[in-house]
Amino acid sequence: MSAGGAPDGEVLARIFLSRVVEPGDEAAGRWLRERGAEEVARRLREGGPRLPGTSDKRWAGLRARAGRAEPERDLAAAREAGVRFLCPGTAEWPVQLDDLGDARPLGLWVRGRPSLRMWALRSVAVVGARACSEYGAHMAATLGAGLAERGWVVVSGGAYGVDGAAHRGTLAAGGATVAVLACGVDRSYPRGHTGLITRIAHQGLVVGELPPGDHPTPSRFILRNRVIAALTRGTVVVEAAYRSGALVTARAAQRLGRYTMGVPGPVTSGLSAGVHELLRGDAVLVSDAADVVELVGEMGELAPDRRGPVLPRDLLDPAAARVLAALPALGTAAPDDIARGAGTTHDDAVGRLYELRSLGFVERHGDGWKLTRQAVTSVRQAPDRC
Amino acid sequence: MSAGGAPDGEVLARIFLSRVVEPGDEAAGRWLRERGAEEVARRLREGGPRLPGTSDKRWAGLRARAGRAEPERDLAAAREAGVRFLCPGTAEWPVQLDDLGDARPLGLWVRGRPSLRMWALRSVAVVGARACSEYGAHMAATLGAGLAERGWVVVSGGAYGVDGAAHRGTLAAGGATVAVLACGVDRSYPRGHTGLITRIAHQGLVVGELPPGDHPTPSRFILRNRVIAALTRGTVVVEAAYRSGALVTARAAQRLGRYTMGVPGPVTSGLSAGVHELLRGDAVLVSDAADVVELVGEMGELAPDRRGPVLPRDLLDPAAARVLAALPALGTAAPDDIARGAGTTHDDAVGRLYELRSLGFVERHGDGWKLTRQAVTSVRQAPDRC
Repeated sequence: MSAGGAPDGEVLARIFLSRVVEPGDEAAGRWLRERGAEEVARRLREGGPRLPGTSDKRWAGLRARAGRAEPERDLAAAREAGVRFLCPGTAEWPVQLDDLGDARPLGLWVRGRPSLRMWALRSVAVVGARACSEYGAHMAATLGAGLAERGWVVVSGGAYGVDGAAHRGTLAAGGATVAVLACGVDRSYPRGHTGLITRIAHQGLVVGELPPGDHPTPSRFILRNRVIAALTRGTVVVEAAYRSGALVTARAAQRLGRYTMGVPGPVTSGLSAGVHELLRGDAVLVSDAADVVELVGEMGELAPDRRGPVLPRDLLDPAAARVLAALPALGTAAPDDIARGAGTTHDDAVGRLYELRSLGFVERHGDGWKLTRQAVTSVRQAPDRC
Repeated sequence: MSAGGAPDGEVLARIFLSRVVEPGDEAAGRWLRERGAEEVARRLREGGPRLPGTSDKRWAGLRARAGRAEPERDLAAAREAGVRFLCPGTAEWPVQLDDLGDARPLGLWVRGRPSLRMWALRSVAVVGARACSEYGAHMAATLGAGLAERGWVVVSGGAYGVDGAAHRGTLAAGGATVAVLACGVDRSYPRGHTGLITRIAHQGLVVGELPPGDHPTPSRFILRNRVIAALTRGTVVVEAAYRSGALVTARAAQRLGRYTMGVPGPVTSGLSAGVHELLRGDAVLVSDAADVVELVGEMGELAPDRRGPVLPRDLLDPAAARVLAALPALGTAAPDDIARGAGTTHDDAVGRLYELRSLGFVERHGDGWKLTRQAVTSVRQAPDRC
């Protein structure tokens, strides 16, 4: 479906359910696992005895929402706005979200061209306080830029403060960034970040569980954080007071077996108190992007060098293959030159380059990109060598 | 000997050796362990084949120093200056220094009235950069005061920067502090801290391995740090650049099985880089004195409450017993009132109170002191209850 064509019943059922069920509802997750999305959607639409693990009152609430859901209209509106819907198990679905078990999103709405699945493979979350200090904003932007320069994708929540600084720092370094919103991805929240979120949608990805037009609520912000934690290889908390939502993301990352990292600050700053609490636990202290990559890259950095690209060249998406073909055999090239060579835009080329980075074909060096040794070898040698 | 009277041969031999052998010399430590101080002193003074583990050249150097040593004169000069000499195994010797093995000091020169052994039982080292930032100085002083208010003794090196701030913060809170110098304890090093070191000698303790008049050298500074690490229950590093001597103290503490703690700071400050490096290892992040006491006090804070005082009242030093008797049965008293009641000076009373705190008889609450529940019980009940 995500490749176009008529949506099947499963997809429409999940779109319907994403209008009816709140993010992270584990009872609903169990229904889907046990009965399938279409059967659950039918029961909610047509009535009948309530499903297990819910009250009569809650069931009636879901039924009322179900009466108002119009999945075909949601899908049409999304397509109009350049938004696609990813179902679990489809090609672009980031499989690491399955670690959430019954709290796994029903699906994800995505704005932006790159492959979420590819980008998420080499991604790190950078999160923190909305009302951050100048130090926090500086560190978030510096980490974003440093991760971008090392070929890592920066995921955050699009909020004011640390989130915004991380996205901006990444974009400023010509990097790849993903905003995970707690509202419909056609909306810009917060309003003051309309410009930033629009830029992210052009240069990167804006994703979320909620259907087009839906608004954020306090519980949606909290539950959005589990998606950030699950999507990424690890979560860095830049500044967070004792009760910051960023600590929710960090703890979710810990539960999911992801790396949890913290940037220390002065102990005289309440905005670092939550980070220091994490660092007194299992979180690892990081001072810069090199520290982060040293930790999360343990496998990711080395594995492609040992194993060569995960995917043979001839299985690449044609657009990605054109970008790969535009890289010189030796030395680095600037994204604009690669874009010209591939006959595409700068933003599309950068998006593809980060996908190719996840697959081990290319590396970023400063502002330029080059083929990895393995990619060069795979060109020179017979194709059966992969 | 430390209680007065004619010094025996062992004491004079160790004083002699402290003029001849450099601090931390493990070959000399082995000679003492295997042959005793008097025999080693005799061999160095009278000549004969060199002892094992040294070169001819080094042996000749030691012999030349031995020719100039005058232990009786050193001892007389020390007594004149109010300095006493502690030998391993004597009553005031802090037994935890024995953890240093053959690098154990030959003896310790001490200025100040309180019992070093008692004070060291409940002590924490607060160390760090000489050229510290305002943040580092603030944190050192705040930690010193906070530890003092919780009845802990603060040990440091008397240097500029973090050390000085820790001593001053402790003194300002009416607390107990020990300066471990890398020179003779009759000298004040650095010169700019003459006033501070004199105050510490009056209100606390100034200690060191080097005989009166001896001067500091770079290696003596480094070796002094092992004494700070070994004396205390744990070491807190407040600010330290990558090659700071404070990291030597922290690593010595780690090797000795003491707690190692660090106060984080902005990662943009090079003065916190060494601390962050420790925190990425086994050191524990601490934000304030409460964090420190939570860690180092695990046994010390709770054990006296469970076991009652370590020493029965009637075995206390008469001066300490008078101070203990001056505390009210209920509620707290100020140090000045306690001093009046015991017929002594403020500084002596405070020194005794920290000794009594180490023994579990008293507690500090804010600026006042009170009997512990166990001490009250031991007054009310039959003496055999201890």
